[in-house]
Formats: sequence, C-alpha cells, structure tokens
Amino acid sequence: MRLDEIARLIGGALTGDAAFEICMIASLENAGPHDITFLSHKKHLIKLQNSKAGAAIVPPEITAGPFNRITVGDPYAAFATVSALFAEPPYTHDGIHPTALVDPSATIGNDVRIGAYCVIEKNVRIGDRTVLGHHVVVERDSAVGDDCLLYSQVTLGRKTIVGDRVIFHSGVVLGSDGFGFAESGGEYHKIQQLGWVEIGNDVEIGANTCVDRGALGPTRICSGSKLDNLIQIAHNVEVGEHSGLAAQVGISGSTKIGKCARLAGQAGLAGHLEIGDNVFVGAQSGVSKSLENNTAVFGYPARDIRKAKKIEGILSSLPEWIQRIKKLEKDKSS
Amino acid sequence: MRLDEIARLIGGALTGDAAFEICMIASLENAGPHDITFLSHKKHLIKLQNSKAGAAIVPPEITAGPFNRITVGDPYAAFATVSALFAEPPYTHDGIHPTALVDPSATIGNDVRIGAYCVIEKNVRIGDRTVLGHHVVVERDSAVGDDCLLYSQVTLGRKTIVGDRVIFHSGVVLGSDGFGFAESGGEYHKIQQLGWVEIGNDVEIGANTCVDRGALGPTRICSGSKLDNLIQIAHNVEVGEHSGLAAQVGISGSTKIGKCARLAGQAGLAGHLEIGDNVFVGAQSGVSKSLENNTAVFGYPARDIRKAKKIEGILSSLPEWIQRIKKLEKDKSS
Amino acid sequence: MRLDEIARLIGGALTGDAAFEICMIASLENAGPHDITFLSHKKHLIKLQNSKAGAAIVPPEITAGPFNRITVGDPYAAFATVSALFAEPPYTHDGIHPTALVDPSATIGNDVRIGAYCVIEKNVRIGDRTVLGHHVVVERDSAVGDDCLLYSQVTLGRKTIVGDRVIFHSGVVLGSDGFGFAESGGEYHKIQQLGWVEIGNDVEIGANTCVDRGALGPTRICSGSKLDNLIQIAHNVEVGEHSGLAAQVGISGSTKIGKCARLAGQAGLAGHLEIGDNVFVGAQSGVSKSLENNTAVFGYPARDIRKAKKIEGILSSLPEWIQRIKKLEKDKSS
Repeated sequence: MRLDEIARLIGGALTGDAAFEICMIASLENAGPHDITFLSHKKHLIKLQNSKAGAAIVPPEITAGPFNRITVGDPYAAFATVSALFAEPPYTHDGIHPTALVDPSATIGNDVRIGAYCVIEKNVRIGDRTVLGHHVVVERDSAVGDDCLLYSQVTLGRKTIVGDRVIFHSGVVLGSDGFGFAESGGEYHKIQQLGWVEIGNDVEIGANTCVDRGALGPTRICSGSKLDNLIQIAHNVEVGEHSGLAAQVGISGSTKIGKCARLAGQAGLAGHLEIGDNVFVGAQSGVSKSLENNTAVFGYPARDIRKAKKIEGILSSLPEWIQRIKKLEKDKSS
Repeated sequence: MRLDEIARLIGGALTGDAAFEICMIASLENAGPHDITFLSHKKHLIKLQNSKAGAAIVPPEITAGPFNRITVGDPYAAFATVSALFAEPPYTHDGIHPTALVDPSATIGNDVRIGAYCVIEKNVRIGDRTVLGHHVVVERDSAVGDDCLLYSQVTLGRKTIVGDRVIFHSGVVLGSDGFGFAESGGEYHKIQQLGWVEIGNDVEIGANTCVDRGALGPTRICSGSKLDNLIQIAHNVEVGEHSGLAAQVGISGSTKIGKCARLAGQAGLAGHLEIGDNVFVGAQSGVSKSLENNTAVFGYPARDIRKAKKIEGILSSLPEWIQRIKKLEKDKSS
Repeated sequence: MRLDEIARLIGGALTGDAAFEICMIASLENAGPHDITFLSHKKHLIKLQNSKAGAAIVPPEITAGPFNRITVGDPYAAFATVSALFAEPPYTHDGIHPTALVDPSATIGNDVRIGAYCVIEKNVRIGDRTVLGHHVVVERDSAVGDDCLLYSQVTLGRKTIVGDRVIFHSGVVLGSDGFGFAESGGEYHKIQQLGWVEIGNDVEIGANTCVDRGALGPTRICSGSKLDNLIQIAHNVEVGEHSGLAAQVGISGSTKIGKCARLAGQAGLAGHLEIGDNVFVGAQSGVSKSLENNTAVFGYPARDIRKAKKIEGILSSLPEWIQRIKKLEKDKSS
C-alpha cells in the first residue's frame, strides 16, 4: 500500500514521499520503519517524536513526527478506516463444512460460509455472504441477515431475528429465557417466555454477552449499537440506535434506552425504566430511576454527574469536616 | 382455547362470552382482539382501558377493561399458569441424534431427546424425558434427573449431580475448578478441586452462569432456586431452597445462604459468610458480613436497608450540610 | 497412601501411627475415620476437636486433634500439595478423537489428547502432553504449549499464543475483538482489531472469562497469574506475573497491571491506567486512577484503604453527625 493511496482513502494532506510503501499499521510504541502509526491526541506527542514509524497520521496542529505524514481532522476516525485495509479474514473456510448440519427447510443465501459442526435448525434463514465460525447453533425459525459474522460457539435461540452486517463474538447467547417467575407460597412459578430477540443492522455483540428473549414480544437491540463482553440484557429491554454498552453492564427487564446511550463498564440499570436519548451512565453506576434526554449520571445510586462529583469531593474530606464539627462543639462548651 | 377453559384452569370468575376463542397471550400494549392480556397492578389501568385485547385477567378491584374478563386474586400468578398453555417446545428433535456420542456405560432414561453433537461421557445417567439441545457436554460420573431441559452449549463437569425438572440455559458451566490456591513465596500453588456440584429439583440456571465444584465436598444449589444469567457461584457455596439470584450476582467461596433469599442484580457476597433465611440484598450491594434471618440490606458496603436509605438521603443533601457547618463557623467568628 | 509417606512429601513431623492408611482428603466437617484433614487457622480448633478425621495436618501451635497428626509450618500449602495426590484426571480419553478435526498443517505434540468434536485450524501448534476436552476450537495460527489443559467448549481466536502448564476452564474465550470504535456523526465506525492474545506459563483462567485481542499488538496475561470466572480483560491490557483476579473483575482497555496484583471480586479498573506491583484492590472497588507499587485501595471510587475505611465509618454514624450539626444550630439560635 502506497502512502498516497492511504492519503486519498482518508482524505488527508500528504507530506513526504508519496510512493512510500506501508507494510502495516502499528501503535506509536511498536511501529517500525515500514509501518504507519497515528497520533490521536497531542498529549502523546513525545511518543510520536520517539516513534520509529515510517509514516504517521496526524491532526492539523502537529507538524512534528516522521518525514512521511498525512494530516487529517480526525486521526482516530482515519485510523478506523486504515485499520480495515489491514484486516485479516477471521475465517478462511469456504462454503458449508460437511459436518455442518443444515436442516433442509433452512434457506441459505449466496456465498454463505458455515464452519465445522454448526447446527442450523428448521426454517432458519441465513442471508448472503454471512460467515459462521465453528460450533454455531442457530435454532429454529431464526433469521440472520446479509454480511453477518458469527464467531465460533455462538448460540441463537428459536425465533431470533438479526439484521445485516451484524457481528457476534464467541459465547454470545441470544434468546435465553428471561428471569420471569410469579411467587406464591414462597415458591417460584415459571412464566413461560414466549417472546423473541430482535437485533438491528450494524450491531456488534461481545463475547459471552447474553440477551434474553422477551416474556411476550421482543427484546430489541437497535441498529448501530455496540455491546461489549459479558453484558446482561434482560427480557423486553430495548436498547436504542447507536448506543454503546461497555463490558459487564447489566440491564433489568423491560427498561427502554434511547438513542446514542453511553453506558460505562459494570453499570447496572433497574427494571421498567425509561432512559432518554444521549444519556451517559458512569462506570459501576446504579441507575434506579428513569432519566431524561441528555442526562449524565454517576454513582451508586446514580445522581447527576456534577452533583455526584461534588458529593464525592466532600466525602474525600469528610474526616476534616468531622473535626470541624467537633471543634464547633468544643468552642461552644468552653 | 375457550375463555371458560382458561377461567376454569386459573380458578377465576368469568364475565362476558364464555365461548370466546383465545389465540394468544399478549401484553396490554400489544394484545389484539383475539388475545388475552392481564393487569398485574392497578397503576396500569389506563393501559388496560387503551388495550385492544379481546379478554383480560384482572384483580377483584377492577371492573373496567374489555367485555371478556376473568377475575382472580393474583393475576400475575394466573398469567404464569396461562403462559404455560402457549409455551412452545424449545426443541423439536426426537430420540438421540446420530451425531451425539453417548458412552456405552451411560444410562439413558425413557423418552430422552439428545441433540446434535452432544457428548455424554462414561457412567453418566440421564433421567426420563430429559431433553438436551445441541453441543451439550456431560462429563463422566454425572447424573441428570427426570424432565430436565439442557439448552445447547451447556457443560457439566465430572461428577455433577442434578435433580428433576431442572432447566439450564445455553453457556451454563457447572463443575469448573474453584479459585483455590495456596500462596507461598509470592507464587500460587494450585489446590486440586476434588469436590463436585449438586443441583436440587426445580432449579433454573441462566445463560453463561458458572457454578464451581467444591474444593472438597459439594457446591449446592438447593431445590426451587432460580439463578439468572452471568452469575458466579464459587466453590463450596450453598444456596438454600427457593432462592432467587438476579443477573451478574457473585458469591464467594464457602458462603452459605438460607432459604428464600432474594439477591438483586450485580450484588456481591464475600466468602465464608452465613446468610440466614428470607434475606434481601439490594442491587450492586457488597455484603462482607454474615446476616441474620429476615434481614434486608443495601449499599456498598451493605447496611440495614433503612439505615442505608437514610445515609443515602443525607448524602444527597451533603453539600447543604457543608454550607451549614461553614455558616456555624462564620457566625462563631463574627 | 500411608501417613508417613504424606509426612515425607510435605516435610512434616508425624505423631501417631506411621503406617496409618489414608483414603481421602476431606474438610474438618466431612472427614471420616480413614480421611486426612487439615487445620489452616486455630480459630477452627473446635471443628478439629469435633472432627471424625483419622488424621490431621496441623500448625506447630496445635497439639490437640486426632491421634494421627502431621505438624507443618503452613498447613494450607501442605493441603495444596496433598490435594494433588488425590487429583482425578479431568478427562480419560486417549489420543485424538476420530471426530476431532485437525487441519493437516497443524503441529500436534507427543501424547496430546484431543476430545470429541474439537476443531484445530491451520498452522496451529499444540505442545506435548496437552489435553483438550470436547468442543474446543483453536483458530488458525495459534500456539498452545506443553502440559496444558483446555476444558470443553474453550475458544481460542486466531493468533493466540499460550505458554506451558496453562489451564483454561469451559467457556473461556480468548481473542475476541476489543471494543474499538471511532465515533463520528453520532455513529460508531469499527476499528479492526489486528492484535492478538498472549498467555504466559502456569496461568489459569476461569469459566466464561473473556480476554480480547489487542487492537494492535498483544493483550497479555503474564506467567503465574490466575484469573477466576466471568472476568473481562479488554484489548491491550497487561496483567503482570503472579497476579490473582477474582471473579467478575473487569479491566478496561490498555491498562497495565504490575506483578503480584490482588484484585477482589467485581472490582473494575478504568482504561489506560498504570497499576504498580503488589497492588490490592478491594471487592467491587472502582479504580479510575493509576496506582503506585504496594498500594491498597478500596471503595467506589477507590481510595487508599485506610482512608476508605475511615470514611465508611463516618458514613455509618452520619445520621448522628447531622443531629450534632442541628444541635449546634439550635444552641446558637437560642
């Protein structure tokens, strides 16, 4: 890959040798003389100056760095684009592996690749160019769209509906029963979980994440949303479009989340909440109340993030405040 | 299904057309003119009034709603009963799939169904009418009771003992080694985990939940208990009968929990605790001390729930309290 | 096993019958007349006195207990050693199961055992005496060392590098994509994850734990470290040697952790932190700042553990402090 081809691809201004050949993309620390690197923030400028990279993608305010540079407005977004040039195919198998069990009633699209020991049950539909690793189980009446990638050991329960360009990492379970029990006489009575899971387009779900089927109707992850590893999505939850959920987040039953949510790691949301659009929830926060659009909360229990930070600051100096109360008492009595 | 048949089944009083034919059970919002819905709490009365449902299960105090109604004392419990009428079989395969590897020394009950690519090791016993999805691994010397349902991709380690009418969702791992190491010289030395896992009757365990084998002796989940997804049960834990553990709960080694516990999502319990019967632990709470019967705790660290709520209230107004301290100081010095 | 053989093995002083035959190792509560037990701490002395054990491993200060005793400096470490005598082989299969799919380009060591339905892709190397359970997937260009044990349903993504004497429990996923997206225009753009996972020697990883591949370069778990179940290790994290991570811990991207860390259950670490050697993080703590060597922190947000305990103590008596402020105000105004 020539440097000018990369510059053209990311719409950047090239300085240096247009014909310079790039071998690989690499971090500031690890890049070698044939690699291209990128500087996302000027606080890492020293690393750029020490980097052995043969070329760098830099923001407009940077004029230092290697001889070969491409200047763009958003180097991190450019890095995303360039990373795709170096992407390796996750799987190299072709067609349907002879050990894959595909029910005759299933509809398999063109150029689909299905790995070893996969099980595709009745009435399943797999869209064009979708790739399944090994040991993927797609249970009956499910539909997976075009251009999807299901890594090895993914399980889709019956009636799961998946859009196009979706990625599921290993160990993902969609369509498990929600935690639905009626209590009477100190015992639990199971409520049959009759719903399903619906996944929009361009969704990515991380390793070992679980999405329960609805009790009635769907549990929904809307288009463009990205879920990290080990997340729990309970029955009848709805995650709006273009939302990002970090690892180990848990969302309880029937909570609806708007568009463009940002939930940091290990945050927990109670059930039956209405969460607006553009909401931010800090790491490990515990949300027990519904939230308006554009709210940012933090803490356990979650509060407005400015208030939470204020309380946190006071807590850090709480021992001194206690001393000041004691002094007031002493001064009064003396 | 006729409405009077449903009324008889749930012991309710019918108003309207006894011969009305019910197609499906549905939520207040989604029910159509051939569906039955239910009202669990009168706060949703407006939804009932707006519902297009053809029939509804309602509590005695409600006389509104559709023409066809069944009145019962506990509509939610009745919903659980009615949901079973509409339950779909999770798997439709019959007998033992030709690709399932069942060791000749295994004992397989009557009417057992075993899916594709399952592996049943030596000396395993599978009870009557138990159903295994695909890719289930049951390692040697394990026993699974009657009428169980093991979804695809479940793994039972050697010597696991499972009662009757148990449900394991996909990705469940029972019998992994506990985190047992002796430290010496700054290094870990493994303590062989020689115990096993015992699961009672009528237990349900959610997707990707892990139950470690005992270091010595069993780790036990007693009859009637329900565990949600992504839960960690460490070695030699005991969860008493009819307990409910919400998603992402973690219980450390050797902690014993009494009957009818209610542990909310992401709660964590330290090791070697004795937790009584009927204990409630709030979401994300961190329990580091043993708890008496009938205790309710909340918070990090977990405290008596009334005290925790009181402290939480004070924290919310802490900035004002700080102002009041400052004012006292100012008034004194002036 | 004779008692004097065990005494020799653990370097202990024998009291009682040297020829006494030991059947099994057992806990104080469950040991029978042919079992050996151990007392790790004198607070359990009453249990020892009530134990039916035929023999006991005790620390020097204990002279009570059964007739047959072995005295050692560290009974818990001795227990680890003795436990190995009674360890059962996790799997009994030999050689490579006929249903295991091993690519012709893979290099399989001597005395390797591979269970049913395993998939070993191109250019994989499996070292001598390594054992794979069933349904293990090792994707292309990965290397697993000697004397490893991979339980059933483990998945190693492409290019994973694993040392010797490593244990992976069921459901472990190594090499899933990290959560790497560039946001622009309110949408996520995937950054291809081009790195890999490197696991040192003598590492153990618990059930359903996930380790993401690096975005560029490796995610590393260094030699001697032990990870419990359901842990999240994000891209480009480094966990130093001989560290211990309890269940459900989450570590965000690019955080580096030194040697001999001790992270308690459900702790969370933010991204891009530098954590020194010998750091302790309490259960459920939220670490958002880098930590020096030998630091112990606790709480949410995590603070120095002594300060955190002090604040926690004040919080417990906060209602009384509020009363004292009110009294000061009242006294002033009267």
